[in-house]
Amino acid sequence: MHTVISSASKSFTIGIDQPFCIIGERINPTGRKKFQEQLRAGDLSQLAIDVEQQVAGGADVLDVNMGVPLTDEPELMRQAVQMVQGLTDLPLCLDSSVIEALEAGLSVYQGKALVNSITAEDERADLILPLIKHYDAAVIGLTNDEVGLSMDPQERLAMCEKLMRLCEKHGVPLENLVVDPLCMTVGADPVAAKVLFETIYLIKEKHGLNMTIGASNVSFGLPNRHVANAAFLPMAMSMGLTSAVMDARTEGIVTAVRAADLLLGNDPWGGSWIARFRAQQAATTNA
Amino acid sequence: MHTVISSASKSFTIGIDQPFCIIGERINPTGRKKFQEQLRAGDLSQLAIDVEQQVAGGADVLDVNMGVPLTDEPELMRQAVQMVQGLTDLPLCLDSSVIEALEAGLSVYQGKALVNSITAEDERADLILPLIKHYDAAVIGLTNDEVGLSMDPQERLAMCEKLMRLCEKHGVPLENLVVDPLCMTVGADPVAAKVLFETIYLIKEKHGLNMTIGASNVSFGLPNRHVANAAFLPMAMSMGLTSAVMDARTEGIVTAVRAADLLLGNDPWGGSWIARFRAQQAATTNA
Repeated sequence: MHTVISSASKSFTIGIDQPFCIIGERINPTGRKKFQEQLRAGDLSQLAIDVEQQVAGGADVLDVNMGVPLTDEPELMRQAVQMVQGLTDLPLCLDSSVIEALEAGLSVYQGKALVNSITAEDERADLILPLIKHYDAAVIGLTNDEVGLSMDPQERLAMCEKLMRLCEKHGVPLENLVVDPLCMTVGADPVAAKVLFETIYLIKEKHGLNMTIGASNVSFGLPNRHVANAAFLPMAMSMGLTSAVMDARTEGIVTAVRAADLLLGNDPWGGSWIARFRAQQAATTNA
Repeated sequence: MHTVISSASKSFTIGIDQPFCIIGERINPTGRKKFQEQLRAGDLSQLAIDVEQQVAGGADVLDVNMGVPLTDEPELMRQAVQMVQGLTDLPLCLDSSVIEALEAGLSVYQGKALVNSITAEDERADLILPLIKHYDAAVIGLTNDEVGLSMDPQERLAMCEKLMRLCEKHGVPLENLVVDPLCMTVGADPVAAKVLFETIYLIKEKHGLNMTIGASNVSFGLPNRHVANAAFLPMAMSMGLTSAVMDARTEGIVTAVRAADLLLGNDPWGGSWIARFRAQQAATTNA
């Protein structure tokens, strides 16, 4: 299955036989106090820095989340999408819990966006999927519903199948669905990643759908998080994960993903790997 | 399935629910010209350095290979085993293509050794497995035979099943068989690691056997090998690999393996991970 997203001039294909899709997580005010204040004041200048760093780090797609309480989030999203699309030709992932913000972003977006997200809850899906259909976007679907999130991979697979039925009901083709099998933190539950890996494998084997996760929280509360995250992503990739909303600014993590591309046969003869190494060498020599 | 190996005073349990078994690869003259010359002259002093570095790096088991042409390899192996067992209480993996060297090593080994290796070829297995049975050792079985190595995971699984029949024939219990599904280099074949991952998954799912590989060659000929190897091992572990003959002296690789232990639920609440981080911090502070 190939999920193609695009900007006005550039497309990216997500798929098991493609290099992994790194969705930069940085444009998100969660936990960023100063950025929140800037957005509340209508100041979007930080976006330029976030875009530049993530493009330099090797992001393939940029997530855009403008979720600050007590703001006009739809208006912020509209402005952010226009600004970011003026700064980079990378495709974007429009990320909001507010349906009007997603609609505002989609209305100005140039290309085929990824939308983050629906769950297996009918009510939200019935409002968002018509937008996905109308704008011919792709959508991230989380494997939880009103009851919550199961720690049984088979039940998460059932949630995935519910998401598939919701897409079919609204005429959204399955290649436009990117399932998020949900990554919890191992600091809260030692089997959290193991359950995730099994879920990814099940969904890949049974339905061959593209999948993404929010990858950074797996190591929350533990020391040496970058190193743990750099091991985690290749593991999830070997099970069938094809994308992640992740830290695109830390070289060790991005390099681990590109190593996994090589090892999974998605960088034949190491062409990208060798080019990456040479660029790093050149950067070191010039520094 | 649990494979237990031991020295006179220490045992290590290999299993899918256990921390990964790091078998230090260093005590091996292949590609080490100076070490070869020393061994030819009967000088085993380098072993003390190799043991110390690998113990400090975090090896769980040490491989001992004395394969230098034009030497009395059985006598070298006998001396090396006795010397190494005097230097460390880690269990050993006796590694030779020469059956007499394996026998010499086993005859002086204190504890339950791992022997490296048999293949799915009757002739060699019929000579080595009686030794394994006699000394109650464990044995590494390679998934190739006289015809060679297949790039089809199902055929490698069939080789694994041939190894299982050979063990049964000689009365060696299956928990004493550690299958080596064979790691080729991605520089020679882009799907080499992908085929390996699928083979590991098949063997785990169908037979639940312990598995080990020689892990360092996967990146042969490519730049930035340590980084590729640090991504590779967690991937293989997520598929079911429980051990590797590997570089135990490079911190980034050992740490990646320990991160994967944590993520696979084999280091609950990160006890070992946190202890490791604190030890690194202390070492940095004292340096």
